[in-house]
Amino acid sequence: MYPSFNILVSSAGRRVALLDIFRRTLRDLGLRGQVMASDMSRRSAAFHAADRGFVVPRCSSPDFVPALLALCERQAVRLLVPTIDSELGVLAAQRARFEAAGVTVAVSSPEVVAISEDKQRTHAWLVQEGLPTVRQGSVEAVLAQPEQWRFPVIVKPRRGSSSVGVVQVGDARQLAATGRRGDDIVQAVAPGHEYTVDFLADRAGRCRCTVPRRRLEVRGGEVSKGMTVRSEVLEALAWRVCERLPGAYGTLNVQLFLDEASGTVNVIEINARFGGGFPLAWEAGAHLPRWMIEEVLGLPSTASQGAWRDRLVMLRYDSAVFVDEARDEARDEAPDEARRGAVHDAQAAGP
Amino acid sequence: MYPSFNILVSSAGRRVALLDIFRRTLRDLGLRGQVMASDMSRRSAAFHAADRGFVVPRCSSPDFVPALLALCERQAVRLLVPTIDSELGVLAAQRARFEAAGVTVAVSSPEVVAISEDKQRTHAWLVQEGLPTVRQGSVEAVLAQPEQWRFPVIVKPRRGSSSVGVVQVGDARQLAATGRRGDDIVQAVAPGHEYTVDFLADRAGRCRCTVPRRRLEVRGGEVSKGMTVRSEVLEALAWRVCERLPGAYGTLNVQLFLDEASGTVNVIEINARFGGGFPLAWEAGAHLPRWMIEEVLGLPSTASQGAWRDRLVMLRYDSAVFVDEARDEARDEAPDEARRGAVHDAQAAGP
Repeated sequence: MYPSFNILVSSAGRRVALLDIFRRTLRDLGLRGQVMASDMSRRSAAFHAADRGFVVPRCSSPDFVPALLALCERQAVRLLVPTIDSELGVLAAQRARFEAAGVTVAVSSPEVVAISEDKQRTHAWLVQEGLPTVRQGSVEAVLAQPEQWRFPVIVKPRRGSSSVGVVQVGDARQLAATGRRGDDIVQAVAPGHEYTVDFLADRAGRCRCTVPRRRLEVRGGEVSKGMTVRSEVLEALAWRVCERLPGAYGTLNVQLFLDEASGTVNVIEINARFGGGFPLAWEAGAHLPRWMIEEVLGLPSTASQGAWRDRLVMLRYDSAVFVDEARDEARDEAPDEARRGAVHDAQAAGP
Repeated sequence: MYPSFNILVSSAGRRVALLDIFRRTLRDLGLRGQVMASDMSRRSAAFHAADRGFVVPRCSSPDFVPALLALCERQAVRLLVPTIDSELGVLAAQRARFEAAGVTVAVSSPEVVAISEDKQRTHAWLVQEGLPTVRQGSVEAVLAQPEQWRFPVIVKPRRGSSSVGVVQVGDARQLAATGRRGDDIVQAVAPGHEYTVDFLADRAGRCRCTVPRRRLEVRGGEVSKGMTVRSEVLEALAWRVCERLPGAYGTLNVQLFLDEASGTVNVIEINARFGGGFPLAWEAGAHLPRWMIEEVLGLPSTASQGAWRDRLVMLRYDSAVFVDEARDEARDEAPDEARRGAVHDAQAAGP
């Protein structure tokens, strides 16, 4: 029916579940195609679990985009999916070069990436749009007038990912003692429980679906137990964030706190990429990747806000890919591609 | 050939890979049997992934052992496998009651558990046995004579697990500022790379196999990338630890640092239970659970130190079990047992 639709997940790292979601998406749409992975290291589970794995330069390197573009052309990639914050800016800026080569990049506009990657800009944008968020300031501003802040407060890097570098401090003296300054911001503590709301933006920036997931347990900065939650307030708020953003495209998410007792909501962060816990939304029925590919191919959309189930719980555990490193190196004649023979059954450590 | 050999993994939590290893072990030995899991919460991946899942009281409760014993009798369990530090003491103390009911408990003697669960006792025992370890003292002792210590030093809880509460401090002033005292210990920083060495002790406390695994990457206190390493020094040292321990039994591990340049080794911790990264040793060929069950059943041993492969790399990623919580609760007529119908395909988020 359609020609082969190859998908490349960039900086794939541990995103084996996302590869599998794209494989199932191709099957659901009746499309042929391979789901490939690129990473800066062979020591990546997804590199080995993908249909094909490729080593590319680090995304901060000037060689990153040329290498990725050449790879997409060589492998007839139709959809490129970035997954880490540090590659979003360069891919958003160079999106037209990929489009010219027939490659859709699942990335938002440079403006949206700029808003999401810097918490100072996120905060300014939320305030400007009248969207609910917590009080935020620079460390210097808080130290200058500590009596105007309610402690404890949260200190985090302006450009951080996961929960790296996030600490709670009890008073101004402790804040000063952290020695943190210009590259960090201070946020008031938001009441309630933390949620991530995944959402899909189409090419016109219109929202097609939102899925709140409550964090039940976090481990190493990523959700290890989560649950989908039907909430008119959260679904509508994420919808609003999506459509106010200047050029959202693909699957993004907002992180927020909801105080169930008072109904207070505070948006904390915007991530212009797939969240690590997205497999829960997908499993609940929110098939955002399918709906995106339908639009890319000009197919009738099956997107629907009613597609996903309330109160589906995700309980994570560790699976693993095993690689015989001695054999992997010895066979490494085509250096940018995984030698499948050296890779063990990825199921060996899972059920 | 043999009657059914049911296995119960206690406090199973996220140990889905360990359940699978026991399933394969039964198959390898030609045994029938179910691999069951107990946990204090239904919100446990292993609870749902096991052949049967059971909710039991928290292991600090006086009801824990009676409930577990009754469960073992009711379900004809032949082997009980504890997995978390906080249940080792009570199960070691009550081992005879389980044995009287025909249940082998894969736990060491109370003396070994006491040595492993308290880092002050671990250190005293290592020194007494002439085994290499780092300098260690109480926070008070270090603060009394800071000039006799080389900073930075590591502060950790006497009875901690994973890397919870472990911090490095740069000088005595910082150490004092942590406010940590009696329940913490101070260790000198060991040079080199961190290794875990899994080992199997038979009923007589004799060592049957040791497998060094180098930590390549840690995430949330548990290894996320690791590699088996043939090392005469480390294999022999873990062997010595095993046989000096007063009553090791089952699969345990030591954590240590090896400075490859100088050959210096320092043992840091002893864990009297399966390590979280054990699936790597198993996948490399170190089938410790099989060798243990062979002894339990009086079968000829196939244990061998040569059984495992050097330089096998484990690259972990997140899989998940999905549970429809509304249906799970509604169907919950037999409250201590998982209703399988409410559980989704555990493969949904993995390949």
